[in-house]
Amino acid sequence: MAVYTEVADEELQSFIAGYGLGPVMSYKGIAEGVENTNYLVTTAKGPFILTLYEKRVALGDVPFFLALMEHLARSGLNCPTPVRDAQGRNLGELAGRPAALVTFLDGVWIRRPRTEHCAAVGEALARLHLAGKGFGMHRRNALRLEDWRPLFDRFRDRTDAIAPGLGATIDAELAVLERDWPQNLETGIIHADLFPDNVFFLDNKLSGLIDFYFACNDTLAYDVAVCLNAWCFEPDYSFNITKGRALLKGYTAVRPLSSGERSALPMLARGAALRFLLTRAYDWINTPADALVRRKDPLEYLRRLRFHQAVAHERDYGIEDAA
Amino acid sequence: MAVYTEVADEELQSFIAGYGLGPVMSYKGIAEGVENTNYLVTTAKGPFILTLYEKRVALGDVPFFLALMEHLARSGLNCPTPVRDAQGRNLGELAGRPAALVTFLDGVWIRRPRTEHCAAVGEALARLHLAGKGFGMHRRNALRLEDWRPLFDRFRDRTDAIAPGLGATIDAELAVLERDWPQNLETGIIHADLFPDNVFFLDNKLSGLIDFYFACNDTLAYDVAVCLNAWCFEPDYSFNITKGRALLKGYTAVRPLSSGERSALPMLARGAALRFLLTRAYDWINTPADALVRRKDPLEYLRRLRFHQAVAHERDYGIEDAA
Repeated sequence: MAVYTEVADEELQSFIAGYGLGPVMSYKGIAEGVENTNYLVTTAKGPFILTLYEKRVALGDVPFFLALMEHLARSGLNCPTPVRDAQGRNLGELAGRPAALVTFLDGVWIRRPRTEHCAAVGEALARLHLAGKGFGMHRRNALRLEDWRPLFDRFRDRTDAIAPGLGATIDAELAVLERDWPQNLETGIIHADLFPDNVFFLDNKLSGLIDFYFACNDTLAYDVAVCLNAWCFEPDYSFNITKGRALLKGYTAVRPLSSGERSALPMLARGAALRFLLTRAYDWINTPADALVRRKDPLEYLRRLRFHQAVAHERDYGIEDAA
Repeated sequence: MAVYTEVADEELQSFIAGYGLGPVMSYKGIAEGVENTNYLVTTAKGPFILTLYEKRVALGDVPFFLALMEHLARSGLNCPTPVRDAQGRNLGELAGRPAALVTFLDGVWIRRPRTEHCAAVGEALARLHLAGKGFGMHRRNALRLEDWRPLFDRFRDRTDAIAPGLGATIDAELAVLERDWPQNLETGIIHADLFPDNVFFLDNKLSGLIDFYFACNDTLAYDVAVCLNAWCFEPDYSFNITKGRALLKGYTAVRPLSSGERSALPMLARGAALRFLLTRAYDWINTPADALVRRKDPLEYLRRLRFHQAVAHERDYGIEDAA
């Protein structure tokens, strides 16, 4: 949560003037998103989100993200839609940063998801996967299996500062994943970061998905595995199979999982847990003490990984056997 | 700029439900205000600001601030107005903090004020002083002359870490102020912190004043001196007499300054510069390196103080002589 780039009122007004949305009525930096700076800008036409892309986002990827949001919105998914300026551009520059204006989405994110929320997110994820099919651009997942060991190598000698033995655990897990990672499953556009803070609800109905800044082309079922990690564990790190069942049922009602995808779930879930363990551990070690961002505990994902390592069968996630 | 207290969706929804404003459509932590946590909450009735009062605010003072905003709004001043819940209360509790909901004010604050903005803020300050007259509650200024030396004593041995000789400069200035501080000028409700970020404009017209959390009873002309410091210096720390004249003309058009107030301006301006120098120096030394708040440079106020020390006559601020 941070505003990395301060935008002066005159700069902002002249930037927004290019969109033909009327005068700026107010703008406030909002404490959401750890990668970029976001302002809630209200004009005569209503509220919008203005995003300034900060250094952590590869600038070459921004056109992909914006085009994807446009594609998904056109396909009927409720997500922020880039606004185009009078020249038809969806990407500009403000305060020395690439900047885009997107529509504002009503809704709040659920801090303690219940089973019905898990069902809804499963369904929305499947709709996202289907909607992504017609999208013509491609982005490699910058955090896929092949990237995990190089990332680990950048901080492996300091992992024991987080927890004794953590380095050895990661090392052994990487060896398993590198040997047994599922191959040849269906690929397509994945969100790759569909955590509760990226899913809005209104009156307990899912109202939209946000934050497509990790979206990429990768194994669709891996995205399901990310959601099992993100939505179905309790605060004591136990896996809630009722939530898992609801999420998978919601998903498969829209896009059935193949038998290959089903049996791959335990390994994909291990991989997803390790991916978040790695980035959180890296951030834990490398976030300067004076950063504006609160660090997230990597060990939450070690606990999840331990669960997945003990899973014997995809039924342990609550998936219904094919009748 | 910070969100010190995270509020969960369920807590927030049940808190807002007590106000009869319809369901919460969205809420975002906003990166404004260094003392409190602020959320922009939108319900079916429109946007509101939710403030959670953090430790730096003396809780006993909150009813004063809320009653003052209600009084000023009733008196025709455009400022956030506390919303009362179904039980008629304007102060509740949320996430373990005292919390209040106030109306949302359109407008943006001006990063580089021009002369016309200074004129408008002078006029608005005078209107605030007049509107405060009928207010029945009283709050001592917690940062008046008598408080400056005790505050200085808490960090005087570390001032030279900010700038060599700073401690001696403050010491000498305090001696002058303690000897020559103007007495017996008209008192009343003052804002005490009317910096550009607390004044909103729409289309270059002043649309409202915010942040009354330093408001108190004190010398009215001291509030004018604060504004001269806050609005009329250029980025190179030179005093812009055109802006000073505009601010004073705007003020006196609504509330004339007595001859005693006019001649006191140089000393009041020195005091105001020292007050902000002291709190910024204290914060500079005491803000932990991992704080979510960016520190403000105290030396900006040393530069202003130097200007005021050299002022021979109130005409140097641009005040018109009484005809």
